[in-house]
Amino acid sequence: MSSARKILKLDRPFEMRRGGTLHGVEVAYETWGELSAARDNAILIFTGLSPSAHAASSIEDPSPGWWEDMIGPGRPIDTRRYFVICVNSLGSPFGSTSPASINPATGEPYRLTFPVLTVEDIARAGHEVVRAFGVTQLASVVGPSLGGMSVLAYCALFPNAARTVVSISASARSLPFAIALRSLQREIIRRDPLWKEGNYTPDAIPVCGMRLARKLGVITYRSAKEWALRFGRERASVERKPGDPFGIDFEIESYLEHHASKFTGQFDPNCYLYLSRAMDLFDLADHGGGSVAEALRRFTVERALVIGVETDLLFPIEQQEELAEGLRAGGRDVTFARLPSIQGHDSFLVDMDRFRPVIAEFFSG
Amino acid sequence: MSSARKILKLDRPFEMRRGGTLHGVEVAYETWGELSAARDNAILIFTGLSPSAHAASSIEDPSPGWWEDMIGPGRPIDTRRYFVICVNSLGSPFGSTSPASINPATGEPYRLTFPVLTVEDIARAGHEVVRAFGVTQLASVVGPSLGGMSVLAYCALFPNAARTVVSISASARSLPFAIALRSLQREIIRRDPLWKEGNYTPDAIPVCGMRLARKLGVITYRSAKEWALRFGRERASVERKPGDPFGIDFEIESYLEHHASKFTGQFDPNCYLYLSRAMDLFDLADHGGGSVAEALRRFTVERALVIGVETDLLFPIEQQEELAEGLRAGGRDVTFARLPSIQGHDSFLVDMDRFRPVIAEFFSG
Repeated sequence: MSSARKILKLDRPFEMRRGGTLHGVEVAYETWGELSAARDNAILIFTGLSPSAHAASSIEDPSPGWWEDMIGPGRPIDTRRYFVICVNSLGSPFGSTSPASINPATGEPYRLTFPVLTVEDIARAGHEVVRAFGVTQLASVVGPSLGGMSVLAYCALFPNAARTVVSISASARSLPFAIALRSLQREIIRRDPLWKEGNYTPDAIPVCGMRLARKLGVITYRSAKEWALRFGRERASVERKPGDPFGIDFEIESYLEHHASKFTGQFDPNCYLYLSRAMDLFDLADHGGGSVAEALRRFTVERALVIGVETDLLFPIEQQEELAEGLRAGGRDVTFARLPSIQGHDSFLVDMDRFRPVIAEFFSG
Repeated sequence: MSSARKILKLDRPFEMRRGGTLHGVEVAYETWGELSAARDNAILIFTGLSPSAHAASSIEDPSPGWWEDMIGPGRPIDTRRYFVICVNSLGSPFGSTSPASINPATGEPYRLTFPVLTVEDIARAGHEVVRAFGVTQLASVVGPSLGGMSVLAYCALFPNAARTVVSISASARSLPFAIALRSLQREIIRRDPLWKEGNYTPDAIPVCGMRLARKLGVITYRSAKEWALRFGRERASVERKPGDPFGIDFEIESYLEHHASKFTGQFDPNCYLYLSRAMDLFDLADHGGGSVAEALRRFTVERALVIGVETDLLFPIEQQEELAEGLRAGGRDVTFARLPSIQGHDSFLVDMDRFRPVIAEFFSG
């Protein structure tokens, strides 16, 4: 399988926000389009928790990316016009330094010796890639979900580093409902006997815990409304194992099973734990003297696009409104798109008919 | 500890709706107030998934019941006027025959040899208690959550057996979002190595699985809005274990931990699995030739009270509207109370200031 993945290796030690230093940090990324001579047409994309930097196909890697419909020639993020960089988050196992990486000091994987990961660390690692291209100001910094939080951290940490910002289904901080769900996902993984306090072996990863946590994720990423329309009380077509009174009866149970199986084995459990916790810990108020409004007031972007979905359980629409209003109060030119998509938090990945025009309009301006 | 629990033992075999026969079925119940000479003042209460028949205190058992504020002299369900019976659901471990009971044919607990349990079986077991009191028509049949489903099944199975009905935070059938959450709770328990396909021993029950399933339950029983107001991003006061990067940081995580610990050990895991599945399987349309509307049209009660809560994730307000409209279409006199409680599905247990007057008003009529 060919890969378009490139790696930036940092020479300097990387100081983590909550303490600890990483040496020899690597940041994986992919790019599309051409950087202009003035280096003023770059767009940086941060991802949600689970994807790699492979946001779209390319000649080097023709497999479809996680945002294939959004990025490319003639697409809403038009690579004939923009130079697009997507970074793999620090802490994610798809090429960037993470708890699954070898600690050069010990020759062993970091595992739980990896320092506490924050969204700000992810933003700073992305910024290193931008600097390496000699770009002093991005045309835009864009991200959904955890990527949206990373985008907010980026704007807070690096004034004047981006002319515009696109925050999608993100929030200024996690509320207790989202924290509770992620905390439970982490505990499900940690209670799997194979987790072994993070010291699982490659041939015995905590698959069961990962599958169950993923099922809970899928439940919270979509919406009750979508499933009522899509599945109703449809019965599963699979055969139930005889003598198992609690197996799969309903189509919705098959659907969860399918998604859980697809995910497991792709994602390193310790990386999942660190990235998940980073979302809980993020609080934009840390950049505004304890006030989210003040942090947003300090943003320097010219224009902002805030997109949220009415059926999002994890990042409710009120949290999108908070971002839009806070940016407006700071004098930014804000477009707030409140979308009636029924696919919940995942809408940015699937309801492309609603997301494409909003993003296309913003970047055609 | 004194108990007010009484047991009705059935002489006849009890045929289960989906096949299988139970012998020597016992149904636990408690009563309050006095049955009138005309036997026309009885109210039957079904419970949610987890409580026992101890809905309120009494001289025999002065400990507070699960609906203490609702039942008693001068309370909304006034025991000076009504004879109140609360039954422990068939399949629940608090005195009624359940998967934890000894199968008289083998001398061993039923465990997974217990037949598939349905909400209709729970309703029929409750009906046996009513018959044993010589009551041919109840003044009302009342229930929240699973108890509300039991109430709907009761009305469908036994025409003219109740003059009024009170359905609280229930639904005509489970939608896929609720099924998905319960299915995941069951799988979490079943994946606990101590579950042993239901053959756990009393000294080694699958506590970990039960704790995690309970946490997921608590998350879905409340609401994001309540927790945002109640906890926000408050940090936990407990000390984190050193070297545990994923322990309790936030107060919401302490809250879940507290609730999970309280529940575990109280509830038999196999019983939980059977009762949980019964909720998924319930479909009132089975009593209306495939149509919920038709099933509701056939109800014979004079008056109905349908209560729902706007923040309920598991039994959304639209499902309460469906019940109220379906009953109205059948010519019933329906009161529909759409409550703005912020405590989600659990509101009937905690938002007593909103629930008491609605129920008091209905029963004062």
